[in-house]
Amino acid sequence: MTTQEALKIYREKTEQLHALGHAMGVLHYDGATAAPAESAEGRGKTLAYLSGCAYEIETSPEMLEAANWLNAHKEELNQQDRREIQVFLRENEFTAAIPKEEYVAYVELLNKADAVWHKAKQDSDFASFAPIVKDIFATNVRFDKYYKPDRAPYDTQLDRYEKGLTMEKTDAFFNALKERIVPLLKKVMAKPQVDDSFIWGKVYPTEAQRKFSDYLMEVITIDRKRCSIGETEHPFTTNFNKKDVRITTHYHEETPVYSMYSVIHEGGHALYELHTADSLEGTILAGGVSMSIHESQSRFMENIIGRSRAFIELIFPKMQELFPEQLKGVTAEQMYRAVNKAEPSLIRTEADELTYALHVLVRYEIEKGLFDGSIAVEDLPKIWNDKYKEYLGIDVPDDKRGVLQDSHWSGGNVGYFPSYALGSAYGAQMLAKMRQTVDVDAAVRSGDLHPITDWLEEHIWKFGAMYDPMELLERALGEPFDPKYFTDYLEKKFTEIYGL
Amino acid sequence: MTTQEALKIYREKTEQLHALGHAMGVLHYDGATAAPAESAEGRGKTLAYLSGCAYEIETSPEMLEAANWLNAHKEELNQQDRREIQVFLRENEFTAAIPKEEYVAYVELLNKADAVWHKAKQDSDFASFAPIVKDIFATNVRFDKYYKPDRAPYDTQLDRYEKGLTMEKTDAFFNALKERIVPLLKKVMAKPQVDDSFIWGKVYPTEAQRKFSDYLMEVITIDRKRCSIGETEHPFTTNFNKKDVRITTHYHEETPVYSMYSVIHEGGHALYELHTADSLEGTILAGGVSMSIHESQSRFMENIIGRSRAFIELIFPKMQELFPEQLKGVTAEQMYRAVNKAEPSLIRTEADELTYALHVLVRYEIEKGLFDGSIAVEDLPKIWNDKYKEYLGIDVPDDKRGVLQDSHWSGGNVGYFPSYALGSAYGAQMLAKMRQTVDVDAAVRSGDLHPITDWLEEHIWKFGAMYDPMELLERALGEPFDPKYFTDYLEKKFTEIYGL
Repeated sequence: MTTQEALKIYREKTEQLHALGHAMGVLHYDGATAAPAESAEGRGKTLAYLSGCAYEIETSPEMLEAANWLNAHKEELNQQDRREIQVFLRENEFTAAIPKEEYVAYVELLNKADAVWHKAKQDSDFASFAPIVKDIFATNVRFDKYYKPDRAPYDTQLDRYEKGLTMEKTDAFFNALKERIVPLLKKVMAKPQVDDSFIWGKVYPTEAQRKFSDYLMEVITIDRKRCSIGETEHPFTTNFNKKDVRITTHYHEETPVYSMYSVIHEGGHALYELHTADSLEGTILAGGVSMSIHESQSRFMENIIGRSRAFIELIFPKMQELFPEQLKGVTAEQMYRAVNKAEPSLIRTEADELTYALHVLVRYEIEKGLFDGSIAVEDLPKIWNDKYKEYLGIDVPDDKRGVLQDSHWSGGNVGYFPSYALGSAYGAQMLAKMRQTVDVDAAVRSGDLHPITDWLEEHIWKFGAMYDPMELLERALGEPFDPKYFTDYLEKKFTEIYGL
Repeated sequence: MTTQEALKIYREKTEQLHALGHAMGVLHYDGATAAPAESAEGRGKTLAYLSGCAYEIETSPEMLEAANWLNAHKEELNQQDRREIQVFLRENEFTAAIPKEEYVAYVELLNKADAVWHKAKQDSDFASFAPIVKDIFATNVRFDKYYKPDRAPYDTQLDRYEKGLTMEKTDAFFNALKERIVPLLKKVMAKPQVDDSFIWGKVYPTEAQRKFSDYLMEVITIDRKRCSIGETEHPFTTNFNKKDVRITTHYHEETPVYSMYSVIHEGGHALYELHTADSLEGTILAGGVSMSIHESQSRFMENIIGRSRAFIELIFPKMQELFPEQLKGVTAEQMYRAVNKAEPSLIRTEADELTYALHVLVRYEIEKGLFDGSIAVEDLPKIWNDKYKEYLGIDVPDDKRGVLQDSHWSGGNVGYFPSYALGSAYGAQMLAKMRQTVDVDAAVRSGDLHPITDWLEEHIWKFGAMYDPMELLERALGEPFDPKYFTDYLEKKFTEIYGL
C-alpha cells in the first residue's frame, strides 16, 4: 500500500459513513417533525440496518488498515489529514470494542426509548420509563468498560463528550460554581422580584411567533437558505452538512419568550455548524468539536447576547410590532429585566442564567451515582426531588416536571448534562476575551452582529474538530479555562439587575 | 442450497432493500418539505450512495442465485412467495440491464433536475430546462433499449408503469375517449356556464384550510396516526410502510378548492397504501400494483366521490363553519355545480373531470414523439401550445402555464401520464361494479364511507401487487376493462349539470 492508496480508501469510506450518517440524521429529524405517530417501528428497523452498515464500514479491516497505515506514516500527511486519522482511530477504538449485535441492539433500544419517554412524561409515570433508563445506563456502563476496562465508566463517558474531562475536574468545576452562585442566589431572593407578568398569560399567536423566529434568525446572521426551522416538542439542532442545518422550536401561545430563546439557543448551535471551514466538509472533523463547545456557542447566543440589555433594546421594536396589544405600555427595560428574572424553578430548559447550573448539578450527581451503583433507577424520582429541595429549595410536584422532563437519557445522551454548565462558563470567558478587540454592546445595538460572529468564526467555528476542546479554548482565550469569568459575569449582571 | 436457505437469503436482501428504499424515500420527502434551499447537493450525494447500495444488492449474485433457485422450485412455494419472485426477477431484469454507473448517474441527474425545473418554471424559461429534459428522455430510451433491444422504447416505458400496456392499446383508449368527450364538451360549451365565482377571489386563510384538511382526511376514513399532511409546491403521496404514509398539499389562500381536492386525491393514494394486506409488508408486493391502479383510487376519491352531489352535501356544513363569511348565502347545490364546472383550461391539475383526459392526451402524444424522435426537445413549447389549441381550443400564454407546469419529467416519471386517464376510466367501471352491492350515495350521505372503502379494500387495496393490473381489474370487475363506463359516466353527469 502507498500513502496515496491508503488516503483514497480512507476518503471513500469516510464518504460512505457520511452518507449513512446523513440518511440516519434525516430519518431522526423527520421522526421528530413530520412522521405520523405509528411510524416509529418501521423507522427503527431502517435505522438499525443503516447503523449496522456504518458499524461494518467503520470497523472494516479495509478502513482500519488504511487508517493504521496513515497513522504510521503521519509525517507524510498534512495537518488536517493527520488530525482526521487521529480522531477516527480514537473513535474507532471505542466502537470496535463493542460487539456488533450489542451496538445494533442499542440503536434499536434508543429508537424505542423516545416513544416510551414521551408517553411516560405525558402520564407523569416514571415506572413505565424506568426499565428503559436502566437498560440505557447499563448498556453505556458496559460499552465504557469494553473500551477502557480499568477506568471508572463515568470518566470514560465524560471523556467521550469532552475529551479530557473527568469526574475530578467536573467536581472541582461545580464546587467553584456552587461557592459563588448559591450565596448570590440567596441575595437575589432577598430582594423584590422583577415583574415578568406581561410575558405570560396573554395569547401570543403561533403565526406571529413564527414571524418573530424568522426575524431573530436574521438578526443573529443565519443564512436561511442553509438552515430551516421545524417544530418539535423539545427544541434541538441537527446538521447533515454545512449547507443543511435544521433547528427546531416549540411555540407556546402563552408566551413569546420560550420559543424566542429556543430559536436563539439552537441558532447558536446552527451558526457553529454553518461556519466550519469548507475544507472540513464531509470529514470526521466537520462541525462542532464537543458538546461543551457547542453549548458554549448556543448559550453565548441565548444568554450573553440574547439576554443582554443591548439585544433586548435592538429587538424590542419588532416585538411590539408583532405583539402590539400584548406588549402595550411595556418598555425595553422592563422586557430586559423580565427575561432575566432569576428564581429557583422546576424546569431546566426554562431556568434563568443564574440558577441553570444548579439544575445541571442535580443531573450530574445522579448520573455519577447511576454509574457507580450508589443510586438505583427505582429511587430516581425521590433522589431527584431531594436534590431539587437541597440545591434550589423547591418541591417537585410530579415526575413530569421532575425526573421525566429531559429527553437526554431516552436519546442515549448520558454524560451530556455537564456540557451545558461548562458551555455557559466557556462562553463567559470568550466574552471577556472578545471584548479586548470587539465592542460587543455597540455591535448588538447597531443591529449588525457580524463583529461578534466574525470573532467566533475566526476563533472557534472554522476549526471544527481540528483541536481537542481544551486546546481550542486555550488557543481562542490565550489562557486556560477558568470558571471565575462566568461567576464574575453572573455577579456583575445580577447585582445590577437586582440592586444588590 | 435448499429452498429454505434460498428463501432466507431472499428475505434478508429484501429487508435491506426495503430499508434503503425507506431512507431514500424520507430523504426525498424531507427535501420537498423541510430541507433548506441549498441542501440539494448534499442530498444528491447521499441518494447516489444509497441507490448504489440498493443496486448492488438487487443485482448481487447472492440475491439473484437465491431468486433463480426459488423460481426453479416454485412448486415448493406458496402463492405469495411465488409472486414475489416473479415480480423481483422481472424488475431485476430491467435494473440489471443498466450499467451501475449509468444508474447512479441517472439518480444524480434526477436529484439535480428538480431544482432546475423549479427555477425554470418560476422564470417561465423552458430553455434552461431543455438540456435536462433531453438528458432524462435520452437516458430512459437508452435504459429501455438495454432491457428490450427489439421493442419500441416507449412500449417498454408504458409497460414499466402498467404491465401489458402498449402504444397500440393506449391509442385505442384515447381514441375511444376523444370520440365521446370532444362532442360532449362542445355541447357543454354551448350552454350557459355555471357560476363558481364564490370559490375564487376571497381570502380563505391557510389556518382554516389546514383544519378543513384534517376534517376531509377523517371523512375519507384515513387513520392519521399512520398518515401525515405536509406542504409542498406540488402535492404528492409517498409511503415507507403501511404505518407511515405521507400526503402533501398546497394551500392557496384565494380558494379552498385547490387544496381540498389535492387532499382528497392524495388521500385516495394514501388509502390504497394504508390498506394492503399485512402479510405483504416489507415485500416487493406491498403497496399499489401500478400507477394506473393508483390513479384509479386517487381519482375515484377525488372525482367520483369528492365531486358527487352527495359528498358536497355532506361536507358543505363544515365548509360553512370554517369559512362563514366567504360562503355566506351559498348553497350546497351551488357548490356542487361550482366544483364541477367544465371548460377548457391551461393547467392539468386544476382541470375538470370532463376535459382532464385531453390534457393527458397532449402529454402522451408528446412523450411518444420524444421517444420515437419525431419531436425535438427544442420544439416542445411550440408543439405543446399547438396541441392545446387543437384539443382544448385555448392559447397558452407562457411556458410556466404550458410545458413547464408538471413535475413529472424532472422526476423521471416519463410514461406516467397515461395512468391518470386510464385511472379515471378504471374508477368509473369500479363504481358501476360497486353499485351492484353498495348504495354508494347513501353511504356518502350518511357520513360513514366505510361501505365504499371496505369494497375497495376487499377488491383492490389488500392485494397490493399480488396480481398484474389487468388481472386485478378483471377479478374486481368480473369483466375486462372497457372505457365506455367512463364516457357513460361523464355523459350522464354533465348532461344533468348542464341540462343538455
